[in-house]
Amino acid sequence: MQKSDRSLVIIGGHEDRTNDKIILGEVARRIGSGKLVVSTVAMAKGTDELFDQYETAFRSLGVKHVYNLEINSREEATRESKIKILDNANGVFFTGGDQVKITSQIGDTPIFQRVREIYDDGGVLAGTSAGASALSETMLVYGGEEQSPAIGGSMRMAPGLGLIGGVIIDQHFMERGRIGRLLGAVAQNPKNLGIGIDEQTAVVVERGNSFYVLGTGAVYVIDGTEVSYSNVAEESLKKTLSIYDVRVHVLSQGDRFDLINRAPRKMQGRAADRLPEKAEQAA
Amino acid sequence: MQKSDRSLVIIGGHEDRTNDKIILGEVARRIGSGKLVVSTVAMAKGTDELFDQYETAFRSLGVKHVYNLEINSREEATRESKIKILDNANGVFFTGGDQVKITSQIGDTPIFQRVREIYDDGGVLAGTSAGASALSETMLVYGGEEQSPAIGGSMRMAPGLGLIGGVIIDQHFMERGRIGRLLGAVAQNPKNLGIGIDEQTAVVVERGNSFYVLGTGAVYVIDGTEVSYSNVAEESLKKTLSIYDVRVHVLSQGDRFDLINRAPRKMQGRAADRLPEKAEQAA
Repeated sequence: MQKSDRSLVIIGGHEDRTNDKIILGEVARRIGSGKLVVSTVAMAKGTDELFDQYETAFRSLGVKHVYNLEINSREEATRESKIKILDNANGVFFTGGDQVKITSQIGDTPIFQRVREIYDDGGVLAGTSAGASALSETMLVYGGEEQSPAIGGSMRMAPGLGLIGGVIIDQHFMERGRIGRLLGAVAQNPKNLGIGIDEQTAVVVERGNSFYVLGTGAVYVIDGTEVSYSNVAEESLKKTLSIYDVRVHVLSQGDRFDLINRAPRKMQGRAADRLPEKAEQAA
Repeated sequence: MQKSDRSLVIIGGHEDRTNDKIILGEVARRIGSGKLVVSTVAMAKGTDELFDQYETAFRSLGVKHVYNLEINSREEATRESKIKILDNANGVFFTGGDQVKITSQIGDTPIFQRVREIYDDGGVLAGTSAGASALSETMLVYGGEEQSPAIGGSMRMAPGLGLIGGVIIDQHFMERGRIGRLLGAVAQNPKNLGIGIDEQTAVVVERGNSFYVLGTGAVYVIDGTEVSYSNVAEESLKKTLSIYDVRVHVLSQGDRFDLINRAPRKMQGRAADRLPEKAEQAA
């Protein structure tokens, strides 16, 4: 692996694990003949069945070395026996569950240091659902679904693992009516780019500076750079948000996004040719 | 009434009819001592109870003359006895139900001619839910909720009554996860401005060229003027929509929108002072 190969596969949840496996296939392709660690730290218990599903899926996709990193407490995240599971891994996959479990149990621990090293050495980190949110610097934790945000509404944020900076990632995006809360989060500080990922859909971040879309749903990019007015700091907490001049891009498979210049473009050439063909919605 | 007074009160559904009645109060204020006709044409039957609710609400708000225009077939919309109900009215309120019932039963009938004359003579037309959608030139009829739009997805459009041109209105907006379908509709022809109205929220269109927001929720304006790319005409019908560079404004009470220049701004002066105070979300 080369440092320049490092990538994040950030998945909006409900990725296919038994049929086409388009998204898991991309994780497998990046792992190659290497070692993949699946971490169920986002779940409290009963993680064996979930791990088995992923192990079966990844083995069927040609990944020969699949290990289970189950962590049930912060203390476990400091144990040598757990840390050793990450030895020589070139990829870590975070399953869904509760994103605060991930950050509270492994944030600033030796386990997290190893995860970061794997990434910095050119590895692949993947996460789905809660595992997706945890990769970003700021996570949306709960609240604010299927409604327009009030300035002091129910939506809560928390610091994530920070493996990708300057973005707030939300998942199960259109399925759970989360665009209101992501707009609210961007309004609070437009330096963060909002990225809302639908189920069965992923963004693949390469070298930390651009991503492309994989899967059947859409990815919503919410860019507050040009916001000309917002009432977020000036009115009562129960007042509904106002925000003018948000730029929104709806991306689907075949689209790429430049995180540095905040600009979308069509994929071209070899990268586009390599995309799976079946990225269509069910009839 | 003066022609310049004509206004539309377009309501996102579930407006309060028994407590604050902020939105219905604005309709009543505009009717003044005049005559209001409530039309239940959007509903198939059992409309008496709904009419009674509105009659009670409007009478409590000081409207002395409230009439019921019930239409159950297109033939009824040509009857002299029905047309006479609109005589000397200076306002018509369309209830919720099915927007296609409204357009298919009164579109291009003498009833609709009278409705249009009332508006053109400076009257007020109001509609909630289906009644809101029917006022626009293009209506979203069904489909496409809580998912990202496919190019040839389930969302269907139909021609509305056309009392406000150049816009597509959607209602129950954030509550029913409809932003995907409105983005899809705007992508098909960005000449139309998308206006998504939350429940308990209304836009009040004055002189056909600007509106302000009333109520507790938000209004989403989706402006495709600067769209730099969309895949809507070039890919398979099952492919998920892509659209770059959509401008989105989230507006709430206190905001005004200039439909000619497609520009939001804060309300100022007398109009702002007249807004009801209690436009806050429930705790």
